[in-house]
Amino acid sequence: MSFAETQLKNLQTPALVLDEAKMMRNIQRLAKQVDGLGVSLRPHLKTVKSTEISRRLLTDGSGPATVSTLIEAEVFAEAGVKDIIYAVGITPQKLDRVAAIRSKGCDLAVVLDSVAQAHAVADASARLGLAIPALIELDCDGHRSGVVPGDPVLLEIGRVLHDGASELRGVLTHAGESYEIQGRHGHEIFTEQERDAAVQSANALQDAGMPCPVVSVGSTPTAHSARKLDGVTEVRAGVYAFFDLVQAGIGVCDLDDIALSVLTTVLGHQHQKGWIIVDSGWMALSQDRGTANQRIDQGYGVVCDEAGQMIPDLIVIKANQEHGIIARRPGSEGKLPALPLGTRLRILPNHACAMAAQFTEYNVIPADHEADLCVWPRFGGW
Amino acid sequence: MSFAETQLKNLQTPALVLDEAKMMRNIQRLAKQVDGLGVSLRPHLKTVKSTEISRRLLTDGSGPATVSTLIEAEVFAEAGVKDIIYAVGITPQKLDRVAAIRSKGCDLAVVLDSVAQAHAVADASARLGLAIPALIELDCDGHRSGVVPGDPVLLEIGRVLHDGASELRGVLTHAGESYEIQGRHGHEIFTEQERDAAVQSANALQDAGMPCPVVSVGSTPTAHSARKLDGVTEVRAGVYAFFDLVQAGIGVCDLDDIALSVLTTVLGHQHQKGWIIVDSGWMALSQDRGTANQRIDQGYGVVCDEAGQMIPDLIVIKANQEHGIIARRPGSEGKLPALPLGTRLRILPNHACAMAAQFTEYNVIPADHEADLCVWPRFGGW
Repeated sequence: MSFAETQLKNLQTPALVLDEAKMMRNIQRLAKQVDGLGVSLRPHLKTVKSTEISRRLLTDGSGPATVSTLIEAEVFAEAGVKDIIYAVGITPQKLDRVAAIRSKGCDLAVVLDSVAQAHAVADASARLGLAIPALIELDCDGHRSGVVPGDPVLLEIGRVLHDGASELRGVLTHAGESYEIQGRHGHEIFTEQERDAAVQSANALQDAGMPCPVVSVGSTPTAHSARKLDGVTEVRAGVYAFFDLVQAGIGVCDLDDIALSVLTTVLGHQHQKGWIIVDSGWMALSQDRGTANQRIDQGYGVVCDEAGQMIPDLIVIKANQEHGIIARRPGSEGKLPALPLGTRLRILPNHACAMAAQFTEYNVIPADHEADLCVWPRFGGW
Repeated sequence: MSFAETQLKNLQTPALVLDEAKMMRNIQRLAKQVDGLGVSLRPHLKTVKSTEISRRLLTDGSGPATVSTLIEAEVFAEAGVKDIIYAVGITPQKLDRVAAIRSKGCDLAVVLDSVAQAHAVADASARLGLAIPALIELDCDGHRSGVVPGDPVLLEIGRVLHDGASELRGVLTHAGESYEIQGRHGHEIFTEQERDAAVQSANALQDAGMPCPVVSVGSTPTAHSARKLDGVTEVRAGVYAFFDLVQAGIGVCDLDDIALSVLTTVLGHQHQKGWIIVDSGWMALSQDRGTANQRIDQGYGVVCDEAGQMIPDLIVIKANQEHGIIARRPGSEGKLPALPLGTRLRILPNHACAMAAQFTEYNVIPADHEADLCVWPRFGGW
């Protein structure tokens, strides 16, 4: 146990705990993987929402990066990130904020998938006298937004952006459905779907005489399973820095790679039911149940001891606002461990983005075993 | 449309919107109902986490009140609330904070259901030279924590509290299972279960020569359906100030009573699928799916226009982190309304406590139709 781990006993619970050594191992793993593919990595900062962590994720702290909200773009631009894609479809009402961020020296690009949005971006660029760059979002797997590859609207959107006062920056896609698939073989299929959608669309734009400098793909499962990415210029991924039970369940990481947990305290028992009650409900753990339909349903989280060692077959089976109910996994055998009043435990997340979002700070166990537990702030909002 | 409603167009989305007129109607409804029962009302402030709203919930702003975290107790005590129950089972590690709040003049009581907790409270009271009051939690419906009525451990816990340096303040129960039952008749059964558990246990303590001044029951469904509460001294409820789709689904309120919503903006469409995509995912709406097992599954929320008028059969069928997908309710008939890029909508919550927790401020439409939209801060954490 590191010195910082012994200091966990001083925290009020629930508290969000981050294991820096595991996080750095996760960061290095993907950096090495993407480096071997000859493309650049554009980490998605929506998971971490922390400038302390963005400095560890971004090679020289300046980018490239992906964000999911304009407040992220504002905070990270202020912290020196110079190259950001805001990867949620733009609305006209947000373009003044985009322009304000760009005018401070950050190359912020937006994402869109319709002619109406392209006109809004071109019009705002003309009105503001500043070329807003936009990537055309592609729907490679039916997950959510995006132009379906082969749809001629792609060229129409490209034309509006390119001929207008705006800038056609490239194409972007995200295989969100890859989170539903277990195993490397399945992820490789999604990786190729992402690549194919992006490269095919980039070629279509270029064949029509338009530029497409950025060809952006990625999700944590597909980024880890990619073997070759011909025609792609960059890969995006987010949750890989922390990992979580969903990623472990689909085989992208091991349970021991998960760097994030909630520290909690036992407040009671219902002995006849085999329940241990802790002071972390969904307000701390989040209501994410991403493992509900996986081979192993991890409830609201896997239970570890205070040092982070997993307790076999113990999960949070139910969560109310400020209460979590811990019990043995349904169908498992063996005795419930004695975890008396006041015992400290740590709960691993279904989804790291969701658990982290419930807190305003990380309690960090530094990679240096002799160092003190420290606090890194985390922001939220839009 | 009030003047403040016309100002919603100036907000960046997603944004949390509160209709003060509806909230005040909800507050007055329960105040009148509980007043008719001859008991006092102890609102649960975990839903609102706002001193602006606590002043509207508490008769003279000073209490009594219920909270679910110590940060709530600290903030509301600082704002002048003098009588608070912290209604989550106490852990030994939190008792110094409890004592600090008490020493500033707020009568903060804790809740517990074990001999071990009673000893911790008695010992801390002796060590700190200050009698910490505790209520014994009862399990009236198998929902979560609490002593089962009739269990002799009740008297043992009472004895430790009463004979120690602590104070035995009374008994408390909460029919959390009433949220799963539709209709007034079902709620009345839970109301009687709460009353019976509490009164039976209070009598047992008194018969054994111990005091039991407070007999506390309540949940939003049972508080609204109570007809007589002989032997009870107070009723607790929380979500009734805002109401939500879960409460509407079990018949405690109408959809039109729901005072809370998220303002969102249309960012795109997948026309072939009948999808409208908005800039509010689970980060804004929460992941609460409390209506999933109700007669009508409302998805991640019911869709209204910008003025708060429901759009028939339109719900959020899927939520990613920052994207919501709106579609017609499965099985419903009719055309998807034309909601072009940039259209503003409002989404009603499954669970008001969970939606509100995703935000740091309320954008309030004042009850006064001529008044400006205003902002009330909201806090979180523990």
